[in-house]
Amino acid sequence: MTRIDGRQSNEIRPYKITRNYIMHAEGSVLVESGNTKVICTASIEDKVPPFLKGTGEGWITCEYGMIPRSTHVRKVREVSKGRVDGRTAEIQRIIGRALRSVVDLKAIGERTIWIDCDVIQADGGTRTASITGAFVALVDAINKLDSTANFTVYPIKSYVAAVSVGIVDDEVLTDLCFEEDSKAKVDMNVVMTDKGQFVEIQGTGEDSPFSREELEKLIQYAQEGIQNLIAIQRDSLGDGGKRIGTGGENNEVREDNNSQQQ
Amino acid sequence: MTRIDGRQSNEIRPYKITRNYIMHAEGSVLVESGNTKVICTASIEDKVPPFLKGTGEGWITCEYGMIPRSTHVRKVREVSKGRVDGRTAEIQRIIGRALRSVVDLKAIGERTIWIDCDVIQADGGTRTASITGAFVALVDAINKLDSTANFTVYPIKSYVAAVSVGIVDDEVLTDLCFEEDSKAKVDMNVVMTDKGQFVEIQGTGEDSPFSREELEKLIQYAQEGIQNLIAIQRDSLGDGGKRIGTGGENNEVREDNNSQQQ
Amino acid sequence: MTRIDGRQSNEIRPYKITRNYIMHAEGSVLVESGNTKVICTASIEDKVPPFLKGTGEGWITCEYGMIPRSTHVRKVREVSKGRVDGRTAEIQRIIGRALRSVVDLKAIGERTIWIDCDVIQADGGTRTASITGAFVALVDAINKLDSTANFTVYPIKSYVAAVSVGIVDDEVLTDLCFEEDSKAKVDMNVVMTDKGQFVEIQGTGEDSPFSREELEKLIQYAQEGIQNLIAIQRDSLGDGGKRIGTGGENNEVREDNNSQQQ
Amino acid sequence: MTRIDGRQSNEIRPYKITRNYIMHAEGSVLVESGNTKVICTASIEDKVPPFLKGTGEGWITCEYGMIPRSTHVRKVREVSKGRVDGRTAEIQRIIGRALRSVVDLKAIGERTIWIDCDVIQADGGTRTASITGAFVALVDAINKLDSTANFTVYPIKSYVAAVSVGIVDDEVLTDLCFEEDSKAKVDMNVVMTDKGQFVEIQGTGEDSPFSREELEKLIQYAQEGIQNLIAIQRDSLGDGGKRIGTGGENNEVREDNNSQQQ
Amino acid sequence: MTRIDGRQSNEIRPYKITRNYIMHAEGSVLVESGNTKVICTASIEDKVPPFLKGTGEGWITCEYGMIPRSTHVRKVREVSKGRVDGRTAEIQRIIGRALRSVVDLKAIGERTIWIDCDVIQADGGTRTASITGAFVALVDAINKLDSTANFTVYPIKSYVAAVSVGIVDDEVLTDLCFEEDSKAKVDMNVVMTDKGQFVEIQGTGEDSPFSREELEKLIQYAQEGIQNLIAIQRDSLGDGGKRIGTGGENNEVREDNNSQQQ
Amino acid sequence: MTRIDGRQSNEIRPYKITRNYIMHAEGSVLVESGNTKVICTASIEDKVPPFLKGTGEGWITCEYGMIPRSTHVRKVREVSKGRVDGRTAEIQRIIGRALRSVVDLKAIGERTIWIDCDVIQADGGTRTASITGAFVALVDAINKLDSTANFTVYPIKSYVAAVSVGIVDDEVLTDLCFEEDSKAKVDMNVVMTDKGQFVEIQGTGEDSPFSREELEKLIQYAQEGIQNLIAIQRDSLGDGGKRIGTGGENNEVREDNNSQQQ
Repeated sequence: MTRIDGRQSNEIRPYKITRNYIMHAEGSVLVESGNTKVICTASIEDKVPPFLKGTGEGWITCEYGMIPRSTHVRKVREVSKGRVDGRTAEIQRIIGRALRSVVDLKAIGERTIWIDCDVIQADGGTRTASITGAFVALVDAINKLDSTANFTVYPIKSYVAAVSVGIVDDEVLTDLCFEEDSKAKVDMNVVMTDKGQFVEIQGTGEDSPFSREELEKLIQYAQEGIQNLIAIQRDSLGDGGKRIGTGGENNEVREDNNSQQQ
Repeated sequence: MTRIDGRQSNEIRPYKITRNYIMHAEGSVLVESGNTKVICTASIEDKVPPFLKGTGEGWITCEYGMIPRSTHVRKVREVSKGRVDGRTAEIQRIIGRALRSVVDLKAIGERTIWIDCDVIQADGGTRTASITGAFVALVDAINKLDSTANFTVYPIKSYVAAVSVGIVDDEVLTDLCFEEDSKAKVDMNVVMTDKGQFVEIQGTGEDSPFSREELEKLIQYAQEGIQNLIAIQRDSLGDGGKRIGTGGENNEVREDNNSQQQ
Repeated sequence: MTRIDGRQSNEIRPYKITRNYIMHAEGSVLVESGNTKVICTASIEDKVPPFLKGTGEGWITCEYGMIPRSTHVRKVREVSKGRVDGRTAEIQRIIGRALRSVVDLKAIGERTIWIDCDVIQADGGTRTASITGAFVALVDAINKLDSTANFTVYPIKSYVAAVSVGIVDDEVLTDLCFEEDSKAKVDMNVVMTDKGQFVEIQGTGEDSPFSREELEKLIQYAQEGIQNLIAIQRDSLGDGGKRIGTGGENNEVREDNNSQQQ
Repeated sequence: MTRIDGRQSNEIRPYKITRNYIMHAEGSVLVESGNTKVICTASIEDKVPPFLKGTGEGWITCEYGMIPRSTHVRKVREVSKGRVDGRTAEIQRIIGRALRSVVDLKAIGERTIWIDCDVIQADGGTRTASITGAFVALVDAINKLDSTANFTVYPIKSYVAAVSVGIVDDEVLTDLCFEEDSKAKVDMNVVMTDKGQFVEIQGTGEDSPFSREELEKLIQYAQEGIQNLIAIQRDSLGDGGKRIGTGGENNEVREDNNSQQQ
Repeated sequence: MTRIDGRQSNEIRPYKITRNYIMHAEGSVLVESGNTKVICTASIEDKVPPFLKGTGEGWITCEYGMIPRSTHVRKVREVSKGRVDGRTAEIQRIIGRALRSVVDLKAIGERTIWIDCDVIQADGGTRTASITGAFVALVDAINKLDSTANFTVYPIKSYVAAVSVGIVDDEVLTDLCFEEDSKAKVDMNVVMTDKGQFVEIQGTGEDSPFSREELEKLIQYAQEGIQNLIAIQRDSLGDGGKRIGTGGENNEVREDNNSQQQ
Repeated sequence: MTRIDGRQSNEIRPYKITRNYIMHAEGSVLVESGNTKVICTASIEDKVPPFLKGTGEGWITCEYGMIPRSTHVRKVREVSKGRVDGRTAEIQRIIGRALRSVVDLKAIGERTIWIDCDVIQADGGTRTASITGAFVALVDAINKLDSTANFTVYPIKSYVAAVSVGIVDDEVLTDLCFEEDSKAKVDMNVVMTDKGQFVEIQGTGEDSPFSREELEKLIQYAQEGIQNLIAIQRDSLGDGGKRIGTGGENNEVREDNNSQQQ
């Protein structure tokens, strides 16, 4: 099968990360995955939600939006409906979890980092592009914060990126564009670190359930795609990414403590 | 490791399905999984959402709620906040997808089946218990409808059930209770059919990413747990479950058509 | 006239109170009045609304809900409409007033007791069953609190219960089921204490006004019905109800003070 | 006991009804009961709510509001809170029921009459003044409509008015002003027709329950007060009130039919 | 061209200001401009919005409403739609700016003055009548406050009033009534002080743009109209207006400081 | 006085219009005015609001948003507050009026053109940049529509653009950036056509009223600025702008009819 845009089945779309895209934000990125374009910003606030007050720990939270004409048919603004819809809520939660999973929240202290992902053009894969781009904005914001906060432990433990995989006409494909996505019988989003570990797997076969063998192949393709995306993040960050994962034992220690607590 | 309630690591909790629990609903079930108790009802409405009008196809949609004191600490009613929160939206969507995946929506005609899952006591696993219980309520409602609608093709294609699996203290466990869940570093919900096919996999390692090997074991445990749950559904439905999957070629045909359309 | 279910005109329906129905709540009851079933919980919170801060007085507030298929036709969730409807607001207020009327709010100290009444099956009389059941849940919660708070004055001054009465086909009836209620030309809810005092009377003759004589008979039937209900509460509480009304002079004194203040 | 403003215990406040107060409305009244002032308008709309479409019957619905500084302390606008509060919902419902109870809804045809009661100055008794004033606005609107619609049956069956009664310092008082109301241990609103029939009784003894004897006296005072209010309505309407209750047998017939239907 | 009501093109409608209209408010006015009638109240609250806490400065904020039948066709209450509409928001903001522009907010100390403008009858020009009337209510409230707060600098720097002007059938008109307004191709609201200075100009030629010459004439008419309105305010306030503008150098000094700060 | 960025007092900022910025929209523009960046899209829908059904006329409506980190401090999403704030409502209305003023709504037929202006970076003047940019997107959308709809009368009657002017330190300035704007004592937005006619003037001197002479100079500067902006629009549109204003007599006729109708 030839894909619409001539890609190999396991090939991601042309990917471009433009850093420092919005002048006001501590970290900001325009991420382009084929025709999908998302502005990701990271904003630092010197307070935490009530459940963390006094704990010394920070928080990362995410909001996701689409400008009305990012989509084929104009999408009604959520404020006009007075509420965030279920899809948006789901996406915000997965992005938040993905980024928190690779940050030592103790190391950033009692601060909240707000991640905003605003889609300006949508052609499939907006949530995975958001995660991949927001990670870079987050690193920039944390590095900027570091210049005044002087972290004793560098807070970012790993790279993290995300890709979609799916099954179209019985073939497993990586990084589906909108047209492929709308024909897919299985749709899966995978979030992984540079150490090859899984942060999130969300696969759904609403139109048609899938077998164990198909699951294996989907996972395989996702792993390959994410390796490529992390290479692109690494290139984009350059020196800014050098300290990722250098928190060393402190990060480990923190996990141990966690286990003991429980 | 011994589990809190003495279960084996791959053992589900005592499970009880009480059919015809609410007198007004076309289908209604009280499902109890250990201390987790959910009322699941299926209500049939003779119209469909706008996007299906005139297509001859039906729809299944789900709403999920918790009574305020189903939880340890009293949970504020969603209406008091004026909106459904993100967690609820996510759960409603997964239940809806799970049930739609095993129903031939053409066969039920232009009708909407409303699934309501209301948790009256929560002790972990409310979303998976909801799916497992709601399936039984759905079958009852469809059988009741059949007595007047006389389906030419029986609409239910497979059994479907769900279970949670997770990793606690480096051990994979099946069907986590609340206390286990709050200590789990990886949390996964799996929805499968009686044919061993996956409908949904949602795994998250927010506190700590997980490896490919751990993924395999989680999937393994989920498969076993779901086999047991489907046996319990089968027992509970008795004759009511006999026609499941008997739509035969018609179901197949429909899937073929689907492929061609795309 | 013979009633639908064979009852005498002044006879209440079979009534059942199951205590400790929900494991997490300080007090919880399943109340069944014929086919009407309501879960009533009482939750204790260690703070009061702003208008009571620093006064040493506590508060009791009530919320009421119906699961969607508690009714003949599926009722849209209030959260979907984004607001509590007028009927719910009215019911919440009457339950709150009924319970506050028999509790010495000074004696419970600066605490809020949240009463939640969630109807799981409705067949008329849900608000009166809610009051009657919630009172028992409230007593259980206060007794539980007493074991740690050691009240110097026992806070519950009287039993309180409620019943509906109405006029159907020119006949006064007690405890109307849904079918009777929908034919009633006069509908009245009465709340009384075990001392035969009125806490609330709400009677409406929207379809047809009623005479002074009819009013007298409605009140008479309500008094009888409530005596029976309080006997059932007493049985259900057993020893738990022994201290009700024993606050003695302290309660009296408080009322005097109140009068003087004004 | 002497009352604050020198009235007898069973005396209503000075009462003034100004008709045609707002130029745009079909019926409009400024009603003044002592310092309480309410603008009541009746607006006719040529359609009915969905549940009445095609039945040939009309509807009367009521909305109630307070301008922010009608009260001692500025009251936050309901739109700022995004929802109608419980008290408003309760009042709107009682006004609507009161007016519908005296109108032959079949006779007005498929029309909705919107009653708006907007309090511009509050000193107790706003809901009863609203009912008493809105009735006059309603008669004016129906008479205006009659000039074009030519009713075969005159739709208004009786006068209807409302008064508050209460117990302050163990004395029963009629038509309480705000200061009296805030000291009352029992508070009751009564709605009656000119034929001495009850449309609504709402009495609450939250601070202190009341006895059967007190109830009798409250009802007695309410009856007297309402007779006086209806005399004032009659004066105000003059010829406009002449046809009230002249629908004759048709009204009766309708009630009979109603009974048979049920 | 003769105007509908026989006025000269540059003539304002009969104007009437009734002070002390609502007994509870610190300042309250019924303003009547022809058939347009607005109740304006000023309420003093002893706290300020968060952004002014600790600055020693006060704030003036405005809310605007219409009772449903103030208009030709009944207007749905904003609370029923759950939100303030765009027109209301716009009007509230212009009234607030107009009043703040003539008050020394430092002189009133950390207080908020709430201005409420509630239209009870609308016939064009409600926003300009609101400004003109609310100014008088504001002066009354500040004078009342002065009797206890003893201002060292009198806070009101100028009179302020507003008028509408427009172009109808190519003729410039002052103070348009509803019928004129609905035919106007240009619609302009002007707010000015007694010193002939502009506080706000809002002119819109949606149906047909306007020329520089027309602009000049509109401004000219507005200036004349506002002079007349301020004379009416002055009459109405009598002695109450004597101290306006007497804050002298202190007001000047404050402005200088402002300039330096920036 | 030297301006922050070295501009002359009557000089606009560097201005850039990028057409076809979003692939899905019928018209889309990125407009950059200095550091202010707004995405403007025009979307065509084949239906009109209820008040225009059956009239043969079309409609243009506008929505405005800001991504959260377009501003110095992160701005909370409007959907999180559940409502559009007053400033947004005001801006949406002015953009809508500006664009409708230059379009023959009869000529576009029963269609709605949705204009969306989404600010991605804000440095003052977002509403004027929105108008200037949205006009270009609108022309592109109408030209695209023309290729299928074949207008008999070309619907766009004039160019329209907008600029801000203000008074800072007693000097009149054109096109204020954020830092200038926050120091301005007078702030004015002007919308004009290429024929030198005014569509909208909104000037406010909240901090300090302004004189007639200052008004003249503000208007003068605005006229000059808008001439420059329209030249930039003309360049950007190239051939796409050739037909603007060619509707000829038909447009005139329409205005005449309008006058006669009234």
